[in-house]
Amino acid sequence: MQVGEFLFECLKNEGITDIFGVPGDYNFSLLDQIEKDGEVRFVHCRNELNAGYAADGYARVKGIGALITTFGVGELSACNAIAGAYSESVPIIHIVGGPKSMMQMQHKPMHHTLLDGNFDTFKNMYEQITAYAASITLENAGIEIPNAIQKARETKKPVYLTIPMDVVTTNMTSRAGNPQRKKTDKASLKEAVQMITTRLQAAERPVILPDVYAMHYGLGEKVEALAQKMNVPVVTMMMGKGGYDESLPNYAGFYCGKLSSNKSARELVENSDCVLAFGAVWDDYNTGLFTDKIDPLAIINVMPNYVQIGKTIYPNIIIDDMIEAFPTENHSWTLPNPVAFPFDQMNPSDGNLSADSYYPQFQNMLKERDIVVTESGTFAWGLAEVRLKKGTTYITQGGWGAIGYALPAAFGACIAAPNRRVLLFTGEGSMQMNVQELSSMLENGCKPIIFILNNKGYTIEKYINTVKNTVYNNFPDWAYHKLPEVFQHEAFTVQVSTDSELRQAISEAEQKCVKQLCIIEMMVAPMDAPEIIHRMHETVLEMENKSKGLLSVFK
Amino acid sequence: MQVGEFLFECLKNEGITDIFGVPGDYNFSLLDQIEKDGEVRFVHCRNELNAGYAADGYARVKGIGALITTFGVGELSACNAIAGAYSESVPIIHIVGGPKSMMQMQHKPMHHTLLDGNFDTFKNMYEQITAYAASITLENAGIEIPNAIQKARETKKPVYLTIPMDVVTTNMTSRAGNPQRKKTDKASLKEAVQMITTRLQAAERPVILPDVYAMHYGLGEKVEALAQKMNVPVVTMMMGKGGYDESLPNYAGFYCGKLSSNKSARELVENSDCVLAFGAVWDDYNTGLFTDKIDPLAIINVMPNYVQIGKTIYPNIIIDDMIEAFPTENHSWTLPNPVAFPFDQMNPSDGNLSADSYYPQFQNMLKERDIVVTESGTFAWGLAEVRLKKGTTYITQGGWGAIGYALPAAFGACIAAPNRRVLLFTGEGSMQMNVQELSSMLENGCKPIIFILNNKGYTIEKYINTVKNTVYNNFPDWAYHKLPEVFQHEAFTVQVSTDSELRQAISEAEQKCVKQLCIIEMMVAPMDAPEIIHRMHETVLEMENKSKGLLSVFK
Repeated sequence: MQVGEFLFECLKNEGITDIFGVPGDYNFSLLDQIEKDGEVRFVHCRNELNAGYAADGYARVKGIGALITTFGVGELSACNAIAGAYSESVPIIHIVGGPKSMMQMQHKPMHHTLLDGNFDTFKNMYEQITAYAASITLENAGIEIPNAIQKARETKKPVYLTIPMDVVTTNMTSRAGNPQRKKTDKASLKEAVQMITTRLQAAERPVILPDVYAMHYGLGEKVEALAQKMNVPVVTMMMGKGGYDESLPNYAGFYCGKLSSNKSARELVENSDCVLAFGAVWDDYNTGLFTDKIDPLAIINVMPNYVQIGKTIYPNIIIDDMIEAFPTENHSWTLPNPVAFPFDQMNPSDGNLSADSYYPQFQNMLKERDIVVTESGTFAWGLAEVRLKKGTTYITQGGWGAIGYALPAAFGACIAAPNRRVLLFTGEGSMQMNVQELSSMLENGCKPIIFILNNKGYTIEKYINTVKNTVYNNFPDWAYHKLPEVFQHEAFTVQVSTDSELRQAISEAEQKCVKQLCIIEMMVAPMDAPEIIHRMHETVLEMENKSKGLLSVFK
Repeated sequence: MQVGEFLFECLKNEGITDIFGVPGDYNFSLLDQIEKDGEVRFVHCRNELNAGYAADGYARVKGIGALITTFGVGELSACNAIAGAYSESVPIIHIVGGPKSMMQMQHKPMHHTLLDGNFDTFKNMYEQITAYAASITLENAGIEIPNAIQKARETKKPVYLTIPMDVVTTNMTSRAGNPQRKKTDKASLKEAVQMITTRLQAAERPVILPDVYAMHYGLGEKVEALAQKMNVPVVTMMMGKGGYDESLPNYAGFYCGKLSSNKSARELVENSDCVLAFGAVWDDYNTGLFTDKIDPLAIINVMPNYVQIGKTIYPNIIIDDMIEAFPTENHSWTLPNPVAFPFDQMNPSDGNLSADSYYPQFQNMLKERDIVVTESGTFAWGLAEVRLKKGTTYITQGGWGAIGYALPAAFGACIAAPNRRVLLFTGEGSMQMNVQELSSMLENGCKPIIFILNNKGYTIEKYINTVKNTVYNNFPDWAYHKLPEVFQHEAFTVQVSTDSELRQAISEAEQKCVKQLCIIEMMVAPMDAPEIIHRMHETVLEMENKSKGLLSVFK
């Protein structure tokens, strides 16, 4: 079996049917093999960064994704996407086609290299941002390819494989290995279960907090079942949004330290004597710029391969096993009264569009099994407080926060789930980063509804920098609705600037999106933003005053 | 003095008046300082990769360039541009705004990081692709900033500085250092001069071969003077094109192993008994896929800090000093008869546009002091054989060869030299990679003439892959001439498909480019390519047959 054939068989076994990337002369043998294979498809993106983001969006829908780039010039353009996938715990297999083995062995100065005869430079870079990186040879292919895939599965992090172009089409000289899976330490698990049981028995105000790892390990339904069985309220954070069914009656809302609008969610978590966290990460975004006030000793955090209870670590416990064995005490806790969510009330107005009125409209239009993709910027914070319907896949970079991510990620999501509705919420600044991927969407017949918030600048940046009237947060004004003409495809495009125009546009798009891609450009005032952004601004100012700003997240 | 003030003073001392980049929350204090400074300008690009390429284009015109990005999400998108600058020997100061020092010292999980409390990850990556990388503190700023700039000057490679946002606005606690410059070993220089003198005295058929380092060390005129004094013919290669005045009578043409069209150039070099190379690199592109046949023992190669004569290395000789001391023997060699260049003859035709006819038109339209920017693809190879006028700056990635480079590099060149004419030769596949930078050009009032070769696919890739009828080398068809409408600026755009239409369009553009940006989209057949690409194809096939392709560059 040729190395390339083996590689694609392994990827197909993982359920990967589409691989994103850009052709380049060192990856031709990989792409030729894909065209010959016929079962797996190469999805040609407009550039490598976008291809990486698309693979990320795809992986968030299907569980794992893959990317093919060429050596040097190709792979380095995708670094940001792969580091983002690492930070956000999204498994991507990044495959790089390299120069011929003989050229590498002879240390020849080849194009697409630093011309120093070193072929490890880019792998060295990728080792910093992947869970596993290997150079594939005829001898190690049978071992390293399954190892890398297993590592991606196990850690939910990206992995990196570089393969000389001639190795792809040559027969393997070793048999396929069977990588060892990490196993739970049963004694450790038993001790954790005992301690959790004790904690639960003593708890008076428990709350469940499922976060990013629970979501990416696909444990949403299991956490839902636990919460229902235990009758405990559930609160989510920025990075884990979408990992819990927000339509359930015990869903109590979004927590983000002092920034959250939802007071009951905040009170529940901050007054809890037992916070059952599943895969929670305590970074600055999740914690509302470190304004969270949860008693650290009250937290039980189930992480991918350990459990932390208060200050104590119970090591070597696989998250799946922990959830399986999770003790559910027969207590019956009282659920909070039905929670009021910030955007439950429609705020119709005849005036100009503003955050007060469009977020309720968004919440209102959501359907079950929608895929909602949200870009960094004010949308990421506003949408975080919108209540989702059952079965929604919610895609955002809640921690990495690279602008330009969402459009290509939405493209990946469309490819992963051609029969689900994809809603993309992005900003005009972000669109400018990667606008070309709209062409790929159109070319591939994708039909998302795209909301472009045009607030004439990087609005969120204007809120978090305390220096006023900066020029650098502005950028050129584009006619976004004319883009489909350049890309030579039909699309439904509309520009709206009032509440009722938006309502009308949404209703039209909901009809038209069955047949075509829809773009709704929302014209709003430059400082239009949801409440949560205003609170963020106040928090930044407060921090600036305290401690001379030494401990503030932003300036 | 604040660290940021000191940094920008140092950059201004280098002649840097424009810094490219993209704002992001960790670089606000840097950008605020620039806006306050007023003497140096921040040029806001549409994304970081493009900003990196623009800084590269700028550096190739002005000698050095600078780039500002934000931590993680920003800097990683620029990796490809910086690695390219390393490979091509272009000095760029890459400045990254980072999280607050206190957050870094406390290893806080911050947004735009891997959330692991490690703030060295991205610097570790950049160490692989820069000549110098440093984390700036209050204590080391006075030493490290001048060191990094000196290193960039000395090596013509990019360097990397990461600066926490609060350090930028705090006073330095150390004085500015005076970095040591490398010095020439005088004994080594003396021995090299003696050996070169001996060689020159014995030489019967000497030839001069100035390449990439001579160009980027700004030694073009000195080499020209040497060549004229010695009365020796001069030949150039891919990476060094533009480093020698091609209008001089002793310019004998382009050498690229078996691929060169110019037979006399090839004969001169391959039959020479003394090849005086200045900063020559022997990578696959420069050598025509290693088909060069120069006697290695006949080569004298003056490198940035050593001289190689035959197999012997004379170390620690700075290239400037070597050229200054270069012996010019009183011999009088015979110049070759006036050389025929491949595109000297206009080939007017009434039929469709083809490489035979448009390259002569390009050569014909060139003027003194033009800046010619050429994208990878068939244009890079065809234009390499076009004879340039005096004072031309020629910009291309002759070795790194990243597609998507040329448009942003041309933007950088326009900013660097607002009063020179910029001609950009690019392809439609490349345009799709980074189309948004056209918006920056329009926004900044740049007025290049842009030739977009629309051959409906990656034509060069179809020539170098021996597998036929691949789907992956095709991509969506765009209406490129409608782009200025989306970007909301006036421009002169025209689509041409015949020789006479091109002639007409060039003549119009030459008038209009005084006032506006011009786009000439050239519609050609999918396999249209200059002779040199056909020879490349034949060479690939030959190599594939010999040695089972083990030693071929492409498939």
